[in-house]
Amino acid sequence: MNERIKIKIFLFQPQGVTISLLTIPPSCVDSSTGATPSEEMNGTGNLMDFLDEPFPDVSTYEDFHTIDWLREKSRDTDRHRKITTKSKESYWELIKSLLDAWSGWVVMLLIGMLTGTLAGVIDLAVDWMTDLKEGVCLSAFYYSHEQCCWTSNETTFDDRDKCPQWQKWAELMTGHSEGAGAYVLNYFLYVLWALLFSFLAVSLVRVFAPYACGSGIPEIKTILSGFIIRGYLGKWTLLIKTVTLVLAVSSGLSLGKEGPLVHVACCCGNLFCSLFSKYSKNEGKRREVLSAAAAAGVSVAFGAPIGGVLFSLEEVSYYFPLKTLWRSFFAALVAAFTLRAINPFGNSRLVLFYVEYHTPWYMAELVPFILLGVFGGLWGTLFIRGNIAWCRRRKTTLLGKYPVLEVIVITGITAVLAFPNPYTRRSTSELISELFNDCGALESSQLCDYVNNPNMSRPVDDIPDRPAGPGVYSALWQLALALIFKIVITIFTFGMKIPSGLFIPSMAVGAIAGRIVGIAVEQMAYHHHDWIIFKNWCRPGADCVTPGLYAMVGAAACLGGVTRMTVSLVVIMFELTGGLEYIVPLMAAAVTSKWVADAFGKEGIYESHIQLNGYPYLDVRDEFTHRTLATDVMRPRRSEPPLAVLTQDSTTVEDVETLIKDTDYNGFPVVVSRESERLIGFVQRRELTVAIKTARQKQDGVVSSSVVYFTEDNPQVAEACDPQPLKLRRILNLSPFTVTDHTPMETVVDIFRKLGLRQCLVTRSGRLLGIITKKDVLRHMAQMMNQDPESIMFN
Amino acid sequence: MNERIKIKIFLFQPQGVTISLLTIPPSCVDSSTGATPSEEMNGTGNLMDFLDEPFPDVSTYEDFHTIDWLREKSRDTDRHRKITTKSKESYWELIKSLLDAWSGWVVMLLIGMLTGTLAGVIDLAVDWMTDLKEGVCLSAFYYSHEQCCWTSNETTFDDRDKCPQWQKWAELMTGHSEGAGAYVLNYFLYVLWALLFSFLAVSLVRVFAPYACGSGIPEIKTILSGFIIRGYLGKWTLLIKTVTLVLAVSSGLSLGKEGPLVHVACCCGNLFCSLFSKYSKNEGKRREVLSAAAAAGVSVAFGAPIGGVLFSLEEVSYYFPLKTLWRSFFAALVAAFTLRAINPFGNSRLVLFYVEYHTPWYMAELVPFILLGVFGGLWGTLFIRGNIAWCRRRKTTLLGKYPVLEVIVITGITAVLAFPNPYTRRSTSELISELFNDCGALESSQLCDYVNNPNMSRPVDDIPDRPAGPGVYSALWQLALALIFKIVITIFTFGMKIPSGLFIPSMAVGAIAGRIVGIAVEQMAYHHHDWIIFKNWCRPGADCVTPGLYAMVGAAACLGGVTRMTVSLVVIMFELTGGLEYIVPLMAAAVTSKWVADAFGKEGIYESHIQLNGYPYLDVRDEFTHRTLATDVMRPRRSEPPLAVLTQDSTTVEDVETLIKDTDYNGFPVVVSRESERLIGFVQRRELTVAIKTARQKQDGVVSSSVVYFTEDNPQVAEACDPQPLKLRRILNLSPFTVTDHTPMETVVDIFRKLGLRQCLVTRSGRLLGIITKKDVLRHMAQMMNQDPESIMFN
Repeated sequence: MNERIKIKIFLFQPQGVTISLLTIPPSCVDSSTGATPSEEMNGTGNLMDFLDEPFPDVSTYEDFHTIDWLREKSRDTDRHRKITTKSKESYWELIKSLLDAWSGWVVMLLIGMLTGTLAGVIDLAVDWMTDLKEGVCLSAFYYSHEQCCWTSNETTFDDRDKCPQWQKWAELMTGHSEGAGAYVLNYFLYVLWALLFSFLAVSLVRVFAPYACGSGIPEIKTILSGFIIRGYLGKWTLLIKTVTLVLAVSSGLSLGKEGPLVHVACCCGNLFCSLFSKYSKNEGKRREVLSAAAAAGVSVAFGAPIGGVLFSLEEVSYYFPLKTLWRSFFAALVAAFTLRAINPFGNSRLVLFYVEYHTPWYMAELVPFILLGVFGGLWGTLFIRGNIAWCRRRKTTLLGKYPVLEVIVITGITAVLAFPNPYTRRSTSELISELFNDCGALESSQLCDYVNNPNMSRPVDDIPDRPAGPGVYSALWQLALALIFKIVITIFTFGMKIPSGLFIPSMAVGAIAGRIVGIAVEQMAYHHHDWIIFKNWCRPGADCVTPGLYAMVGAAACLGGVTRMTVSLVVIMFELTGGLEYIVPLMAAAVTSKWVADAFGKEGIYESHIQLNGYPYLDVRDEFTHRTLATDVMRPRRSEPPLAVLTQDSTTVEDVETLIKDTDYNGFPVVVSRESERLIGFVQRRELTVAIKTARQKQDGVVSSSVVYFTEDNPQVAEACDPQPLKLRRILNLSPFTVTDHTPMETVVDIFRKLGLRQCLVTRSGRLLGIITKKDVLRHMAQMMNQDPESIMFN
Repeated sequence: MNERIKIKIFLFQPQGVTISLLTIPPSCVDSSTGATPSEEMNGTGNLMDFLDEPFPDVSTYEDFHTIDWLREKSRDTDRHRKITTKSKESYWELIKSLLDAWSGWVVMLLIGMLTGTLAGVIDLAVDWMTDLKEGVCLSAFYYSHEQCCWTSNETTFDDRDKCPQWQKWAELMTGHSEGAGAYVLNYFLYVLWALLFSFLAVSLVRVFAPYACGSGIPEIKTILSGFIIRGYLGKWTLLIKTVTLVLAVSSGLSLGKEGPLVHVACCCGNLFCSLFSKYSKNEGKRREVLSAAAAAGVSVAFGAPIGGVLFSLEEVSYYFPLKTLWRSFFAALVAAFTLRAINPFGNSRLVLFYVEYHTPWYMAELVPFILLGVFGGLWGTLFIRGNIAWCRRRKTTLLGKYPVLEVIVITGITAVLAFPNPYTRRSTSELISELFNDCGALESSQLCDYVNNPNMSRPVDDIPDRPAGPGVYSALWQLALALIFKIVITIFTFGMKIPSGLFIPSMAVGAIAGRIVGIAVEQMAYHHHDWIIFKNWCRPGADCVTPGLYAMVGAAACLGGVTRMTVSLVVIMFELTGGLEYIVPLMAAAVTSKWVADAFGKEGIYESHIQLNGYPYLDVRDEFTHRTLATDVMRPRRSEPPLAVLTQDSTTVEDVETLIKDTDYNGFPVVVSRESERLIGFVQRRELTVAIKTARQKQDGVVSSSVVYFTEDNPQVAEACDPQPLKLRRILNLSPFTVTDHTPMETVVDIFRKLGLRQCLVTRSGRLLGIITKKDVLRHMAQMMNQDPESIMFN
């Protein structure tokens, strides 16, 4: 009986924590209870039972907290290891392990299918409701204008939209389709419908799901980087965002559905995660699924699966292993094909803006393309600055108190200003589509009102450059007005309390500017084909300038200026055109736009909104180039009280409870003793709280004056048996991350970024000096950035 | 004079090392030299000079060593910081800093242009020399068959290859183009040319650039992961690889140019790195350029820029920040457009195998596509196992001693067997091209010898399924023989001492198998269109099966089985067809093939070769799932002598020199004292050697018994002034990476992978316990893998 009884149970605990049961020195047992050895064993057995019990789940994180990626990964490996070990035991377990291995693919399939379906439904609903503002289909009220006139026999190319089944409101109500009265009535009803839709949208958001507003991409970026925002990807958000997105887009506001579709897709991802414990119980794995879902979202938004995957990789995701790349691709493809099966555009095209150009571009055209790039960059800067200033105003002034009123007012202004101009009256996607299009011979739009040569005998696809007719000139004026209108109104629209994406408005601004430039270049080339720059590539009677291509380049430039996307932008545009031919113009514009915009400020709109909202997002792209050391950032600072630490064998339960009450730290380092300050581990606040609570309830003899032990060996109880010690080694993380105080901050930032840490301890020659949390890092980076904004300009 | 003189110079040193000059206690100066204070200051001044001198460049690594990514990054930040600081001083410096910022793009442009040019030259030369084996162009000997007959008027669709300017050797030498004699003579010359080419290739490789052999991708993967192989990307390798690649491909061996083109592109990248000190002096930055160069290489190999970038991301690169993604894309595009400007195929197509199919695919066809995927996976397994076994044999037996003979023999066998079969006689790319093609109405090839319906009145593009004619049946036999031949010979060819890629042979195997399956399905559908599976989608007289698509799917499956590429494979194939239509069949085959192949072994051919050659490559994809801890891996083991450490203030110069001589470690930890074992830093072997050598030469009073100090404070010299201490704090890395002994190995592996460490110190409660190097990690991973190969199967 001289030997101490020591039972060790190695549980499959994260971080390889070994649990050594508290061992009671024999002398103690003898003196207090006089128990026989067998009873003593039972006693230990009871303790074992207690510790074997499923420990309350302290693995989840609190709301608005940061996850520990390393820990999540480690937990998943444990889970995986368990399943693999079990799978050798029986066929049933083997099948279960195979199912587990396949669950990732199943989730992707489900996400792809639901996202594609939702996107299709949204497209159909938006089409119908947008047209509802102008009129109604008599044959079936749920038909959109296009569907209504589909089967009409009276359709000619000239007025294919005028079919008897479709009636404008004025015509239906008064019987007159022309005249001032009809115009005013139509105008009035257009504004009324718009107000109704937007009022419904903002009310639904306000009442049911406040998280459904905005584009959602800044928040998703933050969530994917390891932040917890409960409910942001919930079922309610999914439902309300889908419904209000339709309402918001239909109301004619200057916003798009692309960003919110990413949010919707991520909600789907989160929904299906809950079906599999592999994903629902592990925040790291869940984020892999969400990354793939984001890819599926962009895939259906543009019909560009590869672009979607690259968007997720470049813009949204934080941790993107190769396995996720492959799965994202799968999800994006399934989503795209589901959408095509639904076929909302009725043309079995996968892409949103399908274009086909028939002429190549020429070297000299790079000049206007680059100018469009500069325009895009300037627009990006203007938009970001203006929008952020307005959003800050909204946050700080009375404005923020009346979100419904704000939406109503903006909708009213938009609708009133938009109706008179045919280019703003229609939906923005239609506008972009028309601007992108090359003028074929059969095109009836105003933009294609060129003066035709009567003896033209070319094939319809290859029309030579012609002089612009009066329609083109009036279109130019209307487009210019539309451009100014869109630029101004978009700045005020993005960030309101309704779902709003900015891809489409940005692209619209660029497409309008591009088309204007394109027509200008075209007319210049036609009228001055003897000029030296046109001489080489533009013979009279040839088709040398494609204004639609300019619109596309402009759209890419403006989108790039706002979001700072690069590869994904070019790939999305490439998927729209389906040819490598036009990749050089697109790239030239995208690069120029990025450079111009970067010169005025490194951050894209999403990063700016993340900063505005103060999310703890550690951007992968920000390079930290300052010469500070870990010691400059760690807490406690010189003036502050010393670090709150626990000792391995001299803190009492009461001390711990006081510490928990007095501080709000997420965890506490454990040291050998306050004198030596040698670090032995780190204990999480949540786990500590739960462990003490449980011990107090279930373990006899644990009182306030019990000493908490974190040691591996048996506690040396000074006074025999009273009070009973509480052994907590099993919740001690024995592998906390440490750096020395001399570590340059750039290395620390790199470590936080790449390993996804929550906190990191700072030591010097083995002594614990302080702690750096992710928030400290972010705060320090922001400080440094403000001190010396120029130093990051030339990265 | 009571105060010690202490001069600190903060240099922009990596890792924020502060240099504090050794300070001499005044008493010492007085007693030994009796120097006046001013002289003393001079003395210190001298010391300062010595330390200010450009320290010998110890930053470079030795051959076959691993780089420290964190350190390289840190050095680049320092350089960047210096330039930024300077740029504020004058306009000239500002311009220099701008040039520095732009140098990355300049390098990309240069790489793209040179890679594109080289690829074009290689294509032209291969075309010419491949045809040279059969005959010669009389109008100009440097014309290939196609170029020769280009302008020929006698060209009809039936025998467009028969033009009088092009003569086969027999015809030229004997005047007879037909008959047994001519056949034998052609046969003989075909073999002779093949032997000549391959002999030249292997001799050039042997004599001038041994590194030019093989595909190069395994080595490039290793180099990009942070390994140094001097000369592997040198100018000689570039030159010889380009020349011998042409020879090897022309010799008709079963190998392709795609892998070696990646090597050639990386050589170009390395070449242009040397123009800019930003890249040439920093191994980390250099690797960013090389990643982009690899993308350019694949881009020109297939004419698929996006696929190239994804290949680099997925397959080759190790550290791939977003900035590199964008630059890679730029380089890949420049390369692709340069190649198109050269236009080696004469059709201004960008892609290697341009195809256009006119019919969609049907759901039921997924069954044969998935079967092709299974075939691809089996082929991948067979090829990897067979090839690795053969390569191991080559390494260990006499075979390896006679590389020239081996190449000659294999070439002889290949040529003798290849000539009689028209499908193996031609170049492999041509074969694949023909197999991919859909049979148009004007197609004259044997594979398109269908029985035509005399009253067929369809447009030429949309030909209904027809019964196969005798040509198709004989083609099937020949293809079956070619398949067996290719399968066997490729296993023996890859890995010989000539440049050899395996993309093309793998694709050929798949394309042949696919085409055979495709024709079988087509004929089945034609003859049995009343079967239930065909009934729904294949009416008589419809064009429902495209055998070319089967060939393409088969090619993707086989390539996927061998390389385990996923996204990049599908994207490359997508870029070849240019339509999203066929992405589902391709994906189904690629996924199946990967799963089947993975079931037999996780590693692709490149990883297998890396393992075979024992390169220290830490694969990002291998998940480490074992429960070992850092303490199990670290050295010293229990039975080994204690860790070689230096103390901060009690080691003499002699001790250090002995330690350096006796051990071959790359560096030594520095501790406070052997008793306390508190870690204060890490010192590199190279730097230590150089510092001591320099000090002995230049610094008076440093002798063998001098004590080496790593402390920040003044050394406490016990005996006044003799011997003079050597202060080496400036070479001490004060932020060595540490983990605790309880850290799970999976975390350690993650840290090594993500941060690119060379070594990591292991501590326990602040005491130094041991060290883990990258090689230890790799060795441990290999051990674990062998112990329990099954556990990694279900990842």
